[in-house]
Amino acid sequence: MLGAQDLLLMTPGPTKIPPSVQKASGQATMHHRSKPFAIMLGELLEGLKPFFGTSQPILPVHTTGRGAMEAAITNLFSQGDPILSICNGKFGGFFAEIGERYGCQVTRAFASWEEEVELSQLVKLIDSIPDLKAITVVHSDTSSGILNPIEQIAALTKKRDILLIVDGISSIGSVPFEFDKWGVDVAITASQKGLMSFPGLAFVVLNDKAWKAEQTSTLPKFYTEFKEILKSVTKPKPDTPGTTPVSLVAAVHEAVKLLTLEGKENVFKRMESNGAYLRQEMNQLGFQTYPPNLIEYSPTVSMFKVPEGYTSNDIQSFLQQHHGIFIAKGLGNYKDGFIRIGHMGDIRLSDIERTIAAVKDGLTREG
Amino acid sequence: MLGAQDLLLMTPGPTKIPPSVQKASGQATMHHRSKPFAIMLGELLEGLKPFFGTSQPILPVHTTGRGAMEAAITNLFSQGDPILSICNGKFGGFFAEIGERYGCQVTRAFASWEEEVELSQLVKLIDSIPDLKAITVVHSDTSSGILNPIEQIAALTKKRDILLIVDGISSIGSVPFEFDKWGVDVAITASQKGLMSFPGLAFVVLNDKAWKAEQTSTLPKFYTEFKEILKSVTKPKPDTPGTTPVSLVAAVHEAVKLLTLEGKENVFKRMESNGAYLRQEMNQLGFQTYPPNLIEYSPTVSMFKVPEGYTSNDIQSFLQQHHGIFIAKGLGNYKDGFIRIGHMGDIRLSDIERTIAAVKDGLTREG
Repeated sequence: MLGAQDLLLMTPGPTKIPPSVQKASGQATMHHRSKPFAIMLGELLEGLKPFFGTSQPILPVHTTGRGAMEAAITNLFSQGDPILSICNGKFGGFFAEIGERYGCQVTRAFASWEEEVELSQLVKLIDSIPDLKAITVVHSDTSSGILNPIEQIAALTKKRDILLIVDGISSIGSVPFEFDKWGVDVAITASQKGLMSFPGLAFVVLNDKAWKAEQTSTLPKFYTEFKEILKSVTKPKPDTPGTTPVSLVAAVHEAVKLLTLEGKENVFKRMESNGAYLRQEMNQLGFQTYPPNLIEYSPTVSMFKVPEGYTSNDIQSFLQQHHGIFIAKGLGNYKDGFIRIGHMGDIRLSDIERTIAAVKDGLTREG
Repeated sequence: MLGAQDLLLMTPGPTKIPPSVQKASGQATMHHRSKPFAIMLGELLEGLKPFFGTSQPILPVHTTGRGAMEAAITNLFSQGDPILSICNGKFGGFFAEIGERYGCQVTRAFASWEEEVELSQLVKLIDSIPDLKAITVVHSDTSSGILNPIEQIAALTKKRDILLIVDGISSIGSVPFEFDKWGVDVAITASQKGLMSFPGLAFVVLNDKAWKAEQTSTLPKFYTEFKEILKSVTKPKPDTPGTTPVSLVAAVHEAVKLLTLEGKENVFKRMESNGAYLRQEMNQLGFQTYPPNLIEYSPTVSMFKVPEGYTSNDIQSFLQQHHGIFIAKGLGNYKDGFIRIGHMGDIRLSDIERTIAAVKDGLTREG
């Protein structure tokens, strides 16, 4: 078997990390209160803005994505606040669970992992919940491959006194996202997906409507308090509260530089066309794109039902042992018989082709 | 000025990172659900046990040290629980602040940053608080250089139904710590101090008494829920809940290997004697060890009052610009006129000597 370092990660994040990102991270021995670090952090936070589609300050959160999801709840809400959670994937369900743990009144909607958001139904739900405070939704849910229609949902919330909180962990950096233009209120991303870096760091942005809600929130928080992070990053010499994970900042700093050099639009086009190509080729090999018949599939991750006679373990083990490619199985009820392939960040057409060829080889040998 | 990467970090953490640790971290592109990662994580968690002095499972927490401090509070307590916080340093005060934010009844004790714990006074305090649930204390507070007497405090709590929660962030890995033998109930450390790695990862251990308290805790938590982490790390193929910060795990894995090779006792002796030597030489140069007249000084960090006619800025800038050495100023009320020098982890006698020589040079040139 190949060494773990040599595997091609075709997983839905963490994903392939470019050599210059690895190098920048491993060499980042600078102190988090030094001037060079402040410059690097400032460049990174500016560089992320176009990928969020915002002119608002970006807040680094010293957690993985799910810590930032929790922080979005604790920084904006109070006990008893009614929240509507779109749950068409495992990670959509996280928002609901977090809300419940903190005593919010959570309504779960679109709770099947195969169900796209139906907007007229969403409007009815919104109207049925008195004093609804917020909608939570995952943009690209890596457990299902569904891409939720954020722009359309935002069109509903921005006219109302309702916050829209978006987990963009596997979309921002890879998929068009227009925080300001669409009127999203809170968006979250993390280091290890489209930002092609090591895991452990998240980024959040709030608009004025969200900052207003933040002022009246009474849920307890300390480590991830947004207003403290805002104070730190907007100083002339920006830093973060506490000890910054310097090596992770250095990684994302380098990765955002690479994405910016490639050009945001080119990156988005690459993801989109690579995803479509993968699904087309896999379908021809008998792997059904799943869930079937979606209007929109995520450009960053695809789920497939494996052909009759195979298990997801078969496919995963074969690709790892014979081709040095690491893919993911399904999650939850989709563990058996489903695989998930990531195609975000630094995944190139050649990686997609290598994966397809490996799957073909497996079917030939095992078939 | 030297590049940020070339500065010698004589700060109280983050501190110098050995080249092999940098390399291991930068190359850790493995997936967090792969078998090689599980092996690495397992080795790391075993390797940490002697430094905690425990046979209990070590829990990785995907935060810096202060996130793990918050987690210790949220995982063990409920609203209204009476907690006694020893606050003889900035970080001791953190426990008190966190407790208050979550609605615990916090009593602050030994609140001067120059005050050591007086045990008979502590006993009186303990006896004066009905139903006292826990004492929180920082072992080595990097804001003051005080080393608190954990063994003696534990001797008081272990006879009573009171938990002892210890922040060992700048002690564990550098200073003798006997979690099991002393009867500490919860201990915390982090990656960027004595464990000489990049910041962003923490480790916590609980004994049976603490796990019992965990079962009845009602404070809200999600991302840092200890019982979920325990479930993950005690699986035959250990992992952590969510996406593990793989590059940070790889760093600490390598660092613990280095510390283990050097030998725990040798590491402890090195810290102790380097610290004593630094204080002796700095005193001779007119830098008073601060706070004065302590019974015990931390072997990992020392604070000094700078001589008349100098500011902490003067010393810090001179060392950085002319000698490529980065030291810290005091914190809180000790910002002006005080410096802090770290001597933990990979800091060697030659680094101490280089620092002393640089200070001497500064006094000669500027004097």
